[in-house]
Amino acid sequence: MSLTTIIGFVGAMGLFLSAIVMATDNYAIFVSISSLVMVFGGTMAAAFISYEPRYVILSLKVIGKVFLAPGINRNVLKDEVGRIIKWAYAVQKNGIPALESEAKKSAGSDTFLKFGVDMVISGYTGDEVREIMTTAVESAFGRSMVLVNIIKAMGGAAPAFGMIGTLVGLMIMLGAMGGDPSALGAGLAVALCTTLYGVIFSQVIFIPCSTKVLQRESILRFRNFLVAEGLVMLADKKSPRYIQDRMNSFLDPAIHFNIDKDKS
Amino acid sequence: MSLTTIIGFVGAMGLFLSAIVMATDNYAIFVSISSLVMVFGGTMAAAFISYEPRYVILSLKVIGKVFLAPGINRNVLKDEVGRIIKWAYAVQKNGIPALESEAKKSAGSDTFLKFGVDMVISGYTGDEVREIMTTAVESAFGRSMVLVNIIKAMGGAAPAFGMIGTLVGLMIMLGAMGGDPSALGAGLAVALCTTLYGVIFSQVIFIPCSTKVLQRESILRFRNFLVAEGLVMLADKKSPRYIQDRMNSFLDPAIHFNIDKDKS
Amino acid sequence: MSLTTIIGFVGAMGLFLSAIVMATDNYAIFVSISSLVMVFGGTMAAAFISYEPRYVILSLKVIGKVFLAPGINRNVLKDEVGRIIKWAYAVQKNGIPALESEAKKSAGSDTFLKFGVDMVISGYTGDEVREIMTTAVESAFGRSMVLVNIIKAMGGAAPAFGMIGTLVGLMIMLGAMGGDPSALGAGLAVALCTTLYGVIFSQVIFIPCSTKVLQRESILRFRNFLVAEGLVMLADKKSPRYIQDRMNSFLDPAIHFNIDKDKS
Amino acid sequence: MSLTTIIGFVGAMGLFLSAIVMATDNYAIFVSISSLVMVFGGTMAAAFISYEPRYVILSLKVIGKVFLAPGINRNVLKDEVGRIIKWAYAVQKNGIPALESEAKKSAGSDTFLKFGVDMVISGYTGDEVREIMTTAVESAFGRSMVLVNIIKAMGGAAPAFGMIGTLVGLMIMLGAMGGDPSALGAGLAVALCTTLYGVIFSQVIFIPCSTKVLQRESILRFRNFLVAEGLVMLADKKSPRYIQDRMNSFLDPAIHFNIDKDKS
Amino acid sequence: MSLTTIIGFVGAMGLFLSAIVMATDNYAIFVSISSLVMVFGGTMAAAFISYEPRYVILSLKVIGKVFLAPGINRNVLKDEVGRIIKWAYAVQKNGIPALESEAKKSAGSDTFLKFGVDMVISGYTGDEVREIMTTAVESAFGRSMVLVNIIKAMGGAAPAFGMIGTLVGLMIMLGAMGGDPSALGAGLAVALCTTLYGVIFSQVIFIPCSTKVLQRESILRFRNFLVAEGLVMLADKKSPRYIQDRMNSFLDPAIHFNIDKDKS
Repeated sequence: MSLTTIIGFVGAMGLFLSAIVMATDNYAIFVSISSLVMVFGGTMAAAFISYEPRYVILSLKVIGKVFLAPGINRNVLKDEVGRIIKWAYAVQKNGIPALESEAKKSAGSDTFLKFGVDMVISGYTGDEVREIMTTAVESAFGRSMVLVNIIKAMGGAAPAFGMIGTLVGLMIMLGAMGGDPSALGAGLAVALCTTLYGVIFSQVIFIPCSTKVLQRESILRFRNFLVAEGLVMLADKKSPRYIQDRMNSFLDPAIHFNIDKDKS
Repeated sequence: MSLTTIIGFVGAMGLFLSAIVMATDNYAIFVSISSLVMVFGGTMAAAFISYEPRYVILSLKVIGKVFLAPGINRNVLKDEVGRIIKWAYAVQKNGIPALESEAKKSAGSDTFLKFGVDMVISGYTGDEVREIMTTAVESAFGRSMVLVNIIKAMGGAAPAFGMIGTLVGLMIMLGAMGGDPSALGAGLAVALCTTLYGVIFSQVIFIPCSTKVLQRESILRFRNFLVAEGLVMLADKKSPRYIQDRMNSFLDPAIHFNIDKDKS
Repeated sequence: MSLTTIIGFVGAMGLFLSAIVMATDNYAIFVSISSLVMVFGGTMAAAFISYEPRYVILSLKVIGKVFLAPGINRNVLKDEVGRIIKWAYAVQKNGIPALESEAKKSAGSDTFLKFGVDMVISGYTGDEVREIMTTAVESAFGRSMVLVNIIKAMGGAAPAFGMIGTLVGLMIMLGAMGGDPSALGAGLAVALCTTLYGVIFSQVIFIPCSTKVLQRESILRFRNFLVAEGLVMLADKKSPRYIQDRMNSFLDPAIHFNIDKDKS
Repeated sequence: MSLTTIIGFVGAMGLFLSAIVMATDNYAIFVSISSLVMVFGGTMAAAFISYEPRYVILSLKVIGKVFLAPGINRNVLKDEVGRIIKWAYAVQKNGIPALESEAKKSAGSDTFLKFGVDMVISGYTGDEVREIMTTAVESAFGRSMVLVNIIKAMGGAAPAFGMIGTLVGLMIMLGAMGGDPSALGAGLAVALCTTLYGVIFSQVIFIPCSTKVLQRESILRFRNFLVAEGLVMLADKKSPRYIQDRMNSFLDPAIHFNIDKDKS
Repeated sequence: MSLTTIIGFVGAMGLFLSAIVMATDNYAIFVSISSLVMVFGGTMAAAFISYEPRYVILSLKVIGKVFLAPGINRNVLKDEVGRIIKWAYAVQKNGIPALESEAKKSAGSDTFLKFGVDMVISGYTGDEVREIMTTAVESAFGRSMVLVNIIKAMGGAAPAFGMIGTLVGLMIMLGAMGGDPSALGAGLAVALCTTLYGVIFSQVIFIPCSTKVLQRESILRFRNFLVAEGLVMLADKKSPRYIQDRMNSFLDPAIHFNIDKDKS
């Protein structure tokens, strides 16, 4: 997790909490185990009916990873473009075999990249490489979207179960009130607690986390398409200059890769 | 139904119910036959106007099947890929006729697979096989989506009829109240019961079930496309190595099929 | 209207109404001419501003037809496929002219089918037939979607005008109350009646009817595409066996047409 | 504005208003200048931030035109088809130059039609005509959609500012109440007035007007595509009979143009 | 910021505020630091979890720029078309090299235009130019959509945190009330203040700003496609007359460029 995120999040959350502290001394009314259990239990029950358990558990794990720093950012994208262009020059000079030794040096543990390089070396045409790699990118993205959708569905279910809890609380209170309106206040406060928990769960945890996972997976897909496009052009033996123009067109002009300036 | 699902669901539902038990001893207020009848009857009436009765009844049956274990999971997908690749080697060695005897051995009662294999054996081209099988997959998926949409529509109608019931209850209560605010409590509790039922029906049964059926049908469609793609490549007489790369590109890298390792 | 629909709908609606009967003897509070007038008048006024009057009146007529039995069901689809395949054998034996006499026998008053058969007989190519017939199917579907959208818009406007009526009722009541809280009950009951009507109009009439019309038009479109696809293959002089495989791929395997078994 | 629209709208609106008249004599509570100002001012402020002022003002003008009669209806479409077919016969007999004199007679002030005819006469191919005219139709439609979206956004903002006004009214009332519940009634009536205005603005003006403009622009786009399709076929020198079949396929069978019957 | 926008916005906002001033003298109840902190802090916290901090900060900066005058309007579009057509005549007379000197004169600091002109001069085909420039336009638009989505998400989160604040305020109030209903008024006014802030933040700032940024980026994309299309036709060496017809088809007929009239 980058320092900026921590400062931003902690600062904003601190503002929010300090506003509550300013308003009351009676924090006890915001703590209710039964409300917590009702919202969390209900949300999980709905999730376990809606999806196979394997994916529900995976999606809970993904929520935990949201606070780690992202794997891919602008500079990574620029480096990917640079690497492909360097390979293009190598291929232009020494043919496809040069790609093999280049790839061994820099591909590292990136299985997606290796999978694509292997196809180029095996002599697949550009169209074949594009067809297979596009499928691979979209399948991977589709698999991660299942988890995003589960988290989003939890974000929709939590306030609903919060409302269910408040209805339950209201009915208990009203049933027990016996015509005494002065008991309304305290009972209502307790009943509302479930709605509060449901909305907070949804707005602070589930919806933001699903958004962040969606963002990261979209960037990963973007990066994979970029790499695939580069490998397709390598397989089609396009000129390095054309590859540079084509790949730069995907990037923010501020980080365009220029082989003459960005040699590394 | 797999053991994990049972544990997950029963555990989560237990949490939810125990939270209610913790909060009150007066369970009677949560039981109301007239509320149940109003929500269920209204939802069914809306469904019978919206859709042909044949499909409404089918969709209720589908809800019942949600708790059975799914037919298709990750390993099934890998096995499908493996089978197609083995067939590809058989076809490479002995030509299309080899496919006929292979298919008899392993296709079993899978009518979709048999339908496709028959077309390959009859000598249809890859494009013809793809056109016909894609139509078959999409038509089957479209037919199951009708049921998903009916269940989803029930999930939307149930809270609406819950609200109608609460309005009815409120009006009865307010009309009978006669200026005596102390009667408000008990009457309101009864009126809210219908909303509670409507929301629970929707959030615990209809919406999760429609999601699960949608998931399963999507996976089935995915599997069918995978099989269709494999048969198209068999009809086009692609090399087994290309078929393996192409089919693996649909799968999670963790379950890529490798003929050299996964012989079975 | 098929017997099953009647039984299903009457039974479900009966449940709903009996639940109200169980709860009160004071039915008078649910009858309010001014509420009815306000919800219906407002909904119609919005519809007449939103759409040309010709289409608003057509859409009200369509609502009336929802309770008639549907024109097209599974067996009709199978018969269509069977007819096309029989024609294919006739064309194979005796050439296109055979189609003319066959069509005269069985096309009846189906203008869409006649329109297509005429084009095949005139010697249009398969692509021309597909282009023209696809346009005809989509235009017809588009025209009926206008009516579906009007009914859907009414389903959205009715609860809004119900809420407007309740606001009006509330303001009248609160303005006249003069600090006497005991008048609150009866007045509120009257005000809520408009919301009740708006929601019931929407949930029991407009939304289900728009869904059913949408369903039926989708099935009609599906049937027309099926017929068009068949005529395209006739124009392209495909073999009857291929036509059978291709057309069956649109159908549920349970109703696949097989010329060897289903001769009629 | 056609007579039917006036009767339909005035009748429906009359019903709605008479229902209010039936319910109370105290009309004063429904009139509140400050509520009107708050809802209208807020909606306009949001519109001026959201869109360039030029378009906000254009969209207000478009609302005023909604009550005029529409420019295009079913008979206009049939006449367009008839005109194109007559031109086709003229072109078949005397070549493209005949189109020039025909167009001068009947194109009138229709700049779109003239633009297309000019291209056909200049000898552009059918594909060029289609490419340029499709762009022209879609660009014009896109420009009018900007106005539709502004009106729709106003329809969304009006109830929100109504709710803001009610919140403001509630807070003023509650702040001034000083523990005297009998002041609640009148104050609440005033506060609710803003919500009433917001919902009425939205449901009676903004949403229906945006729907009608959308409808009319869609019909205009449909008409323009029809004309463009006809000109493309003229440029491609298709037979008049084919042009008639192709263009009729866009129309309701009830208004199919038949050159043998509909000479005019 | 153009004068019209200022007048429109200030006038409309003035109406809104004067309506509040008309209704009360007690402005103090609308000022609550803790409410402001809770809504703003919560919204920011959700944003920092949902998106990488870099983009959250960029999107806040973009909100600030909404009040500046837009860079592109109708006349800019017409000028772009005129420039391309003049270049087309130059290329027709003196070949592609003429484009180089023309571009140097008028391209200025427009990197997108220069990027495209360079490709045309390098001798890329029309299809290559279109492929690369389309990617560049769509990538730039996609990057700006991230910011639009962040602002939209803030517009959704603000009222939710407003509601959370009101729930918190209600619970504090109800918990402290101790059976004394006369304390309800003042406490409720304070609690509602958070909802008011949340809705105003959303309706007056976040949603309108996201709409305006979306509008501007759409216009920029439209302009870039227009320029790209022109350069593609230059690369394909189309006649200046065809380029003029094709490019005018994108514009409102009122601002069609005509080389014979609009020489400049």
